[in-house]
Amino acid sequence: MTTKTRGGNFFEDFRTGHVFHHAVPRTLTEGDMAVYIALTGDRHPLHCDREFARSLGYDQEVAHDLLVFHIVFGRAVPDVSLNSPANLGYADVRFLAPVYAGDTLRAETEVIGRRETSRPDVGIVWVRTRGFNQRQEPVLQLYRWAMVNKRDPNTRLRRTDDAPELPLRVATEDLHVPPQMDLSQFDNVVTGGQFFWEDYEPGERIIHPQGFTIEDAEHQSATRLYQNNARVHFNEMLQKKSRLGTRIIYGGHIISLCHSISFDGLENAVRLLGFNAGAHANPTVAGDTLFAWSEVLERIDLGRADAGALRLRLVGVKNLDPNEEDVPLRVKDAESGREGYHPNVVLDLDYTVLMPRRR
Amino acid sequence: MTTKTRGGNFFEDFRTGHVFHHAVPRTLTEGDMAVYIALTGDRHPLHCDREFARSLGYDQEVAHDLLVFHIVFGRAVPDVSLNSPANLGYADVRFLAPVYAGDTLRAETEVIGRRETSRPDVGIVWVRTRGFNQRQEPVLQLYRWAMVNKRDPNTRLRRTDDAPELPLRVATEDLHVPPQMDLSQFDNVVTGGQFFWEDYEPGERIIHPQGFTIEDAEHQSATRLYQNNARVHFNEMLQKKSRLGTRIIYGGHIISLCHSISFDGLENAVRLLGFNAGAHANPTVAGDTLFAWSEVLERIDLGRADAGALRLRLVGVKNLDPNEEDVPLRVKDAESGREGYHPNVVLDLDYTVLMPRRR
Amino acid sequence: MTTKTRGGNFFEDFRTGHVFHHAVPRTLTEGDMAVYIALTGDRHPLHCDREFARSLGYDQEVAHDLLVFHIVFGRAVPDVSLNSPANLGYADVRFLAPVYAGDTLRAETEVIGRRETSRPDVGIVWVRTRGFNQRQEPVLQLYRWAMVNKRDPNTRLRRTDDAPELPLRVATEDLHVPPQMDLSQFDNVVTGGQFFWEDYEPGERIIHPQGFTIEDAEHQSATRLYQNNARVHFNEMLQKKSRLGTRIIYGGHIISLCHSISFDGLENAVRLLGFNAGAHANPTVAGDTLFAWSEVLERIDLGRADAGALRLRLVGVKNLDPNEEDVPLRVKDAESGREGYHPNVVLDLDYTVLMPRRR
Repeated sequence: MTTKTRGGNFFEDFRTGHVFHHAVPRTLTEGDMAVYIALTGDRHPLHCDREFARSLGYDQEVAHDLLVFHIVFGRAVPDVSLNSPANLGYADVRFLAPVYAGDTLRAETEVIGRRETSRPDVGIVWVRTRGFNQRQEPVLQLYRWAMVNKRDPNTRLRRTDDAPELPLRVATEDLHVPPQMDLSQFDNVVTGGQFFWEDYEPGERIIHPQGFTIEDAEHQSATRLYQNNARVHFNEMLQKKSRLGTRIIYGGHIISLCHSISFDGLENAVRLLGFNAGAHANPTVAGDTLFAWSEVLERIDLGRADAGALRLRLVGVKNLDPNEEDVPLRVKDAESGREGYHPNVVLDLDYTVLMPRRR
Repeated sequence: MTTKTRGGNFFEDFRTGHVFHHAVPRTLTEGDMAVYIALTGDRHPLHCDREFARSLGYDQEVAHDLLVFHIVFGRAVPDVSLNSPANLGYADVRFLAPVYAGDTLRAETEVIGRRETSRPDVGIVWVRTRGFNQRQEPVLQLYRWAMVNKRDPNTRLRRTDDAPELPLRVATEDLHVPPQMDLSQFDNVVTGGQFFWEDYEPGERIIHPQGFTIEDAEHQSATRLYQNNARVHFNEMLQKKSRLGTRIIYGGHIISLCHSISFDGLENAVRLLGFNAGAHANPTVAGDTLFAWSEVLERIDLGRADAGALRLRLVGVKNLDPNEEDVPLRVKDAESGREGYHPNVVLDLDYTVLMPRRR
Repeated sequence: MTTKTRGGNFFEDFRTGHVFHHAVPRTLTEGDMAVYIALTGDRHPLHCDREFARSLGYDQEVAHDLLVFHIVFGRAVPDVSLNSPANLGYADVRFLAPVYAGDTLRAETEVIGRRETSRPDVGIVWVRTRGFNQRQEPVLQLYRWAMVNKRDPNTRLRRTDDAPELPLRVATEDLHVPPQMDLSQFDNVVTGGQFFWEDYEPGERIIHPQGFTIEDAEHQSATRLYQNNARVHFNEMLQKKSRLGTRIIYGGHIISLCHSISFDGLENAVRLLGFNAGAHANPTVAGDTLFAWSEVLERIDLGRADAGALRLRLVGVKNLDPNEEDVPLRVKDAESGREGYHPNVVLDLDYTVLMPRRR
């Protein structure tokens, strides 16, 4: 037996300042974009209507921002999160240059901090991951922090905490609208949306009508498409012994499904600009039925006449239909008295989209 | 909570003469064509063999006629059939210009009639849907009628019936053979088919050998590929409360699977020309095993030496193998004495294909 | 009822020397390549990284050798193995010219021998299948032998055995490295692999960490992608009556999954050169969790400075994790005393890969 396989990095292996150059760059193709639609049901026309994309100034239909996110994220898994029981949060996620079929994405990740936790067997690692196309233009940057298993529960970091302070939101000046994009000719017959930037009021809640029951074959196919090889999504034998008792669905797939569900009521949200913050509040497994609502957090003036930014909270809920009953985001635990996410809330994503203004 | 989401149209919302310009045009790609094969097993070579397609006068392999059908149908769902418990029939469905990878399809639907039914909670709506490519050339037209829920069971139409008379079949002069198509060099080594137009006798029944057991992940992926967002296909929680008790499979997926099954015995059926009539006789759900037989209804002379049209009845059956036991199309109900479809018959499609003539 | 469907060939139908020209050539596209990744999780960068493929001398990313294998194999199924309960072995499988998106593959198969068995109802048929692209260049050749049902258990061949002697391995001079390929600039940051040809020692065993639990929707989609229409993979009603009791997974899908799993520890194995021998030791069904190990059999000097060949034994195991317990390849049966494959071993593939040398 040999040690030619690496089991991924453990908490002890991360050094603040180290940069991983991740393996297996990936050429995105029309094939990936079709499989993405087959697995998420996404209908945002920038990503499936070549003529519409051209009318906005793009060369052709653009890879879905979340497809780019998952591909970049997937590159980093073997180095960063193979031994991670949970991703804890995202910050300052920015979608930069558009990605077209034929572009090749690679990724690198800098370790930006570590912290011991109250549990001896896990620590927390903060990273900054960046994705680049074949012209070395950045297409995505993200901060995230994850719980990472220790190789040895007895190790302690010498300096136990150099956790960074991360931005609480993407700064308005960092919300990247591609220079070629021009929404002055935006045609809402294409989106089917009746509502524009001015029509969304902070505090407003939009309950999206669709519900998606998720199968193992579906989330596994999505996660494999992204070449994300975290074992917990694929190995039922391993997972049977886990607390959850079965394969856990890749949290990014849940983001994609919720974002697809959110099309009804936010049809004119042309594309994502960034994630401000995000949490996978509870796990999902095959058989769960996923619903979503959106809350309008803020209208952001981008200083342009054709479009503004809309900051939204996208909440995913499993096995309770918010169209039929009120589901609170957070609840107080009866025993501990502590407040936390409602046990059926699975996603709490604070993100920002580009939205055309009324003409 | 806001009303930014539309719940689709109800019976009361349809006005005869109104035209919907459906949202989310879709660029068909090689990716969609590959996913179509992965989900249906289709082997018709016009749609997967570039060299063969060129030998018949096409630029390259052509999107499957049924893929085009599903994409156009899917466009119309949010406006027409989100509140439809069942599609009742098709008429005069014509496949027009060929669709290639890179073409963008949009659709519009005219309401052509409505009728009250004996049930107070539903009515019937007749529509004509047309699909166009980016050059505004029609690629598909279809009539269909569907049961549609009322918003309020107490509403009654003032004029309770302006249901149209629809053609009983596609007229021979409307069977569209693309002008560039030339079957004089048709090579049946490519199809593997031994039989030509002259060899099929009206009344003949061809029992196709394959059987497909259908999984939820498969029909959901197909229906999402078409961006058909009817809730009944995806939401197990909703469907558990329905009469069927589980997710219902999109009827169009059943047409695609039956058509794929029908390849064995009809290998030289180059492409579809039209549907004359069609009914989804009974619902299918995950776990059902699908079989099919074809009955030759008519040989239609197209006035050309290279090819004729063959009118066929394609019958889909669930959970009974017509290769092993005789399954009647229709049976008399023991209690009511009324004749209807055999409970295992799921599809009865009267359609017309193009078939080369013997040289 | 008519006989327009052929039920495939039975043992009596095979004549040594006969050549089948298989139907339904297939144009491989970027769509097929994306679906392949979604169904196998493959990460070998030659097949998904356009820039890397170009750096090695290719025009662009190359279709996965196993995708080509399955497409060619699938062409042959209707003529060769529709009535085959099991494929018994492979020999001298050679991967020849690279296949790119847009290439169209056709296949032909020569019957090279037959043998009666101790069972009256089945015989064994040996074939040589070759795949060609649209320029009639060979892209793959393979020998395989399969058990094939008799139409009539009473028939006996006149000459009961003309089984060929097949090479025990692909001859070194037949290991085909495309002339344009140049590994002198091979960048192992792209693969993430730390180990080169010189680092692998014969006798070494690499236990790969991943485990894949397989769903019916997944293996069915893969097998349909290859247009392989063998009934045993799709028809649960039929298979319920079989000894196995359910749908059997196409053995080629198991090869693809094991090969994908083997990436961890063999990252620099650029591509396949050939199969020397292979056996599907036991069947797999949905719900099985698949693991794999590799044993290094031989380092083969190709007489070039940039790369050598590595002969490997890839072993697939179901429902036992070789990372956790020792799984022997072969065991002695308690009752019969005969040695055979361990009942959880599902694949024993002796194959050869191209591997860059240390610079």
